Amino acid sequence: MKESINSEMKVSLDSLRLPEDLKNLSLKQCAGLCGEIRNLLITTVSKNGGHLASNLGVVELTMAIHRNFNSPEDRIVWDVGHQSYTHKILTGRLDKFQSIRRRGGISGFPKPDESEHDVFISGHSSTSVSVACGIAEAMKLQGKDNYAVAVIGDGAMTGGMFYEALNNCGRDKNKNLIVILNDNNMSISKSVGSLAKYLTSLRNTEKYLNTKRAVENGLDKFPLVGKPIRKSISNIKSSMKYKMFEQSTLFEDMGFVYLGPVNGHDLRELEEVIHMAKSYHRPVIIHAKTIKGKGYLPAEKNPGEYHGIAKFDIETGNPEVSVCECYSTVFGKELVRLAEKDDRLTAITAAMKYGTGLQFFHFKYPERFFDVGIAEQHAVTFAGGLASMGQIPVFAVYSTFLQRAYDQLVHDVSIGNLHVILGIDRAGIVGEDGETHQGLLDVPMLTSIPNTTIYSPSCYDELKMCLNKAIYANKGLVAIRYPRGSEDVAFNKSVISTEYLFVKEKPADTLMITYGRLYNEVYKAHGLLNADGISCDILKLTKIYPINRSIIAEIAEYKRIVFFEESMGEGSISEKFGDLLAEYGYSGDYSRITANGYIKQASVKQILSDLGMSCDKIADYIRKRSVMYGET
Amino acid sequence: MKESINSEMKVSLDSLRLPEDLKNLSLKQCAGLCGEIRNLLITTVSKNGGHLASNLGVVELTMAIHRNFNSPEDRIVWDVGHQSYTHKILTGRLDKFQSIRRRGGISGFPKPDESEHDVFISGHSSTSVSVACGIAEAMKLQGKDNYAVAVIGDGAMTGGMFYEALNNCGRDKNKNLIVILNDNNMSISKSVGSLAKYLTSLRNTEKYLNTKRAVENGLDKFPLVGKPIRKSISNIKSSMKYKMFEQSTLFEDMGFVYLGPVNGHDLRELEEVIHMAKSYHRPVIIHAKTIKGKGYLPAEKNPGEYHGIAKFDIETGNPEVSVCECYSTVFGKELVRLAEKDDRLTAITAAMKYGTGLQFFHFKYPERFFDVGIAEQHAVTFAGGLASMGQIPVFAVYSTFLQRAYDQLVHDVSIGNLHVILGIDRAGIVGEDGETHQGLLDVPMLTSIPNTTIYSPSCYDELKMCLNKAIYANKGLVAIRYPRGSEDVAFNKSVISTEYLFVKEKPADTLMITYGRLYNEVYKAHGLLNADGISCDILKLTKIYPINRSIIAEIAEYKRIVFFEESMGEGSISEKFGDLLAEYGYSGDYSRITANGYIKQASVKQILSDLGMSCDKIADYIRKRSVMYGET
Repeated sequence: MKESINSEMKVSLDSLRLPEDLKNLSLKQCAGLCGEIRNLLITTVSKNGGHLASNLGVVELTMAIHRNFNSPEDRIVWDVGHQSYTHKILTGRLDKFQSIRRRGGISGFPKPDESEHDVFISGHSSTSVSVACGIAEAMKLQGKDNYAVAVIGDGAMTGGMFYEALNNCGRDKNKNLIVILNDNNMSISKSVGSLAKYLTSLRNTEKYLNTKRAVENGLDKFPLVGKPIRKSISNIKSSMKYKMFEQSTLFEDMGFVYLGPVNGHDLRELEEVIHMAKSYHRPVIIHAKTIKGKGYLPAEKNPGEYHGIAKFDIETGNPEVSVCECYSTVFGKELVRLAEKDDRLTAITAAMKYGTGLQFFHFKYPERFFDVGIAEQHAVTFAGGLASMGQIPVFAVYSTFLQRAYDQLVHDVSIGNLHVILGIDRAGIVGEDGETHQGLLDVPMLTSIPNTTIYSPSCYDELKMCLNKAIYANKGLVAIRYPRGSEDVAFNKSVISTEYLFVKEKPADTLMITYGRLYNEVYKAHGLLNADGISCDILKLTKIYPINRSIIAEIAEYKRIVFFEESMGEGSISEKFGDLLAEYGYSGDYSRITANGYIKQASVKQILSDLGMSCDKIADYIRKRSVMYGET
Repeated sequence: MKESINSEMKVSLDSLRLPEDLKNLSLKQCAGLCGEIRNLLITTVSKNGGHLASNLGVVELTMAIHRNFNSPEDRIVWDVGHQSYTHKILTGRLDKFQSIRRRGGISGFPKPDESEHDVFISGHSSTSVSVACGIAEAMKLQGKDNYAVAVIGDGAMTGGMFYEALNNCGRDKNKNLIVILNDNNMSISKSVGSLAKYLTSLRNTEKYLNTKRAVENGLDKFPLVGKPIRKSISNIKSSMKYKMFEQSTLFEDMGFVYLGPVNGHDLRELEEVIHMAKSYHRPVIIHAKTIKGKGYLPAEKNPGEYHGIAKFDIETGNPEVSVCECYSTVFGKELVRLAEKDDRLTAITAAMKYGTGLQFFHFKYPERFFDVGIAEQHAVTFAGGLASMGQIPVFAVYSTFLQRAYDQLVHDVSIGNLHVILGIDRAGIVGEDGETHQGLLDVPMLTSIPNTTIYSPSCYDELKMCLNKAIYANKGLVAIRYPRGSEDVAFNKSVISTEYLFVKEKPADTLMITYGRLYNEVYKAHGLLNADGISCDILKLTKIYPINRSIIAEIAEYKRIVFFEESMGEGSISEKFGDLLAEYGYSGDYSRITANGYIKQASVKQILSDLGMSCDKIADYIRKRSVMYGET
């Protein structure tokens, strides 16, 4: 490591060309910068919300990576990119950092169109080793001698893709692939499964250090060994290591060189191990132990709470808005209520116990609760196994993560017509997490699976009714989709229904169709339009699929039908309504407002407005459409 | 093991109550039955086609399972159920066995509605441990002391779900779960990856036998040890085993007891190890070494070829129809031709090198060819990594298996707008493999992913054109879907097009829309109708998505539009046409013929006819539709 001439001088982030200048600093100067970064992380996340604990845990690791690799020629792939904040700060985005997760600002995840240092998008877990493996193979084909580096957390290691990638990376050893395991002994929820236990056992070994020391002690016995020979020490270590330890790690069984564990907050130790890893020119895994939330006491104490957090007060660590009732908690509590009377009910989460409101179930019925880790595929097929024995499994999962289990829903649940309930949380627009997290594909996915039933309640009471129906009135695969956040207090509870309901006041030419959270906006638009003397009716769906075909004849009476839907437009319910209307021979004015394409970060409110789904925009659209067709 | 009084008597399958009587037979009698079963397997598969090599490999294993477990109280879960033929024979389906894979006959995969002994559907790989884990947990909740048994091949172990399941099963040790690894050192293609190497190293150990012998030798030293104490030997073994071997296996790291390797063709050894496994009452993995194709020399020599095979001649082992050109080989050869001139092209398969026609590419460009094992998720994300470096990856995959990678297509390819080509083989009806293998969901899946382009050629020349277009004229995610089997020789090549084409002859009221293989049937129907004096036009799509909206105005001129589509109807192209017609205000007669629901095994021809997609049925439909509306 080169050191700058003035290695004692205190430096600040804004005085540096980043990441280049990092390599010329002393370790002491770097430690100073790590402190500055931590302050920036805490201050910014306290204002913008975001992922705090995981980012605090990788400050030194990220510093060591950028000092010892040449990004972007060496390509750093961040698994579940929410741990990339320090990386963003160290690669030219210091000045934009306050805008993180805000509309028009920088993303909370790596985004190649934001910086050449963000080599791959990642918002879902366990992808980084596959990506880095592709990059390393491409480097080889292109004759490049750079490194592909994947940084992955211990939670992400529970996903099956990680294992598929290990199996493939290790088979051809001739590539510059380095996997850095950021082991904070804590996935999003507390790590579950055998792997967590296994890692804990590894954490407590001194394998790497022992090797190193043994080799160095060995060399000390030969005083004639000079500098040139020391350069090839790491190669000697490589071959010696295999012989020194009879017990190989799981990673070695999979064809990797295993180096670790090392202290992920000790810059010197990190740099040493990275240096060693680079010398192998074959797949290496570095096991770095880190502390989630490091340097901010409230986060260290409650890393789960500070994993993803809304705005909070720095002094007290208290969130600005206290945790209150939301769709997730209502779902979770209702499930507990039902489980009291029904032994068959079991609850499953894929590492999102708190996010999905299942903590209540876990507390009350631990023997019927299963947190399977970040393993949505297993979660669904495991549910199929439970259902085949007459249990009633309820898998609560974020819409975007359910995408991981499409085939399992088809193959392991639907074909066998097994009764499995999905609580699809964060369905629709999620806001600040952006493209990778929007819940816009569950409707196309699920409607393509034969015999699936889907509910989309508009308020808490409907959610409870839907859950009851799903469990006791339906068969096969049944999904209930509900949004992130809380019920709209303005909601008119008089329209509660588990099938569908017309809101009709006076004879009207226009019918607005909608479901879920959006009903509230449509209902408000209805009021605005009525105030303008434009009469229009509403069809609110609760059971959105299968479509009750008898509705089609009824709605075909309207001159104009507009469907507002918080889903990707392709494969949506409104598309199916269009098709049914065509088959019916409807010749009126049918149009639909849906999401189309990927949607960047902003608040939910901003995005719904951008999509034309706020009450004002809805009213405007109906007004314009009426004028266009010479009405009003 | 009880033995029948007359243990020397030769028995035949048809004289037994199965599976009950198996337990009363001698090992010698069982060996005789194994021979009878092998003959039946070879004779039947030579007539019906099907999976031969894998079934020949598990005859003794299946026999041992049914002698030592009580199905259906103990639940046997077959991974990729094509290895369940002997199981079917031994559980009451001897008399129906000749009907396997035929219309109305028994399925080539486990089907709960066929027998109580088939506990779970499985046509896709790597699901069994998740299923068995669900079953074992349910048994525990229900207070049952039975066993959940998963039988999984070494190929299926490369799928990430297997690892997700291991991670979860091992965490709570208190359950009766036994995983039997049927290690034939040969997945569908030759096993790839580190795991295969690792298993090979395990195969060559004598771990289990050493343990057993050591324990027994130990006991022999204490002559006073009588029968009661021997009963708990296995428990002693359990605790001793851990201390005896410092080197733990990957399975032990994941919380399983590992027993093996054992000879999977030695009934006595198998029974002994199963007996031991049952005594643990915690998750156990039995590693059984088997020979794929065992007992039929042509299959032993070429297990890959006999994995899934069409009818063949028993004497020579030659297939009835010699392997000829098909969509897969045309695709594979064209890719080689393009790769000669373009270094960026790389080819990926998930353990289906021969099935997808990539053997030519592998032979010519091994350094640009990647067989990742049964790991579709990794395959897609790995492709994303390659594409991010400017390579052009082409992933050739069966439609039904692509379902495994839905999220990876969205998250790791599409959001980043990476240029990845999918060769979707076996799209549409596949025939004898039935529900789990039909390729009917790729269109709904892919159209829901923003900015995807999909081609569906109707003949080889179009396939080549589409592949060229996909690589050089399009960006982002591009798919080409083509059917299993060969081009229709009756095809009219004058209509070749990469976008769409109208076949118009005289003024017509009716327009038939279609794409892909079905065009040939529609074209023939067109001839039949013309001969009857019913004029109708055809719109043949080649680029099926995104839909060229300018077509809508053109087709809206027709009084009647009928769309014939070899896809699940929900989320299909014909549904989107319906919606676009509704938005256009079309008031004519729109209808569509698609697949709906799961389709059981039969020949492709039979199924297409059942669906109303044979030329006769198409012509009939148009005739009736015309009469219904008072035309002709």
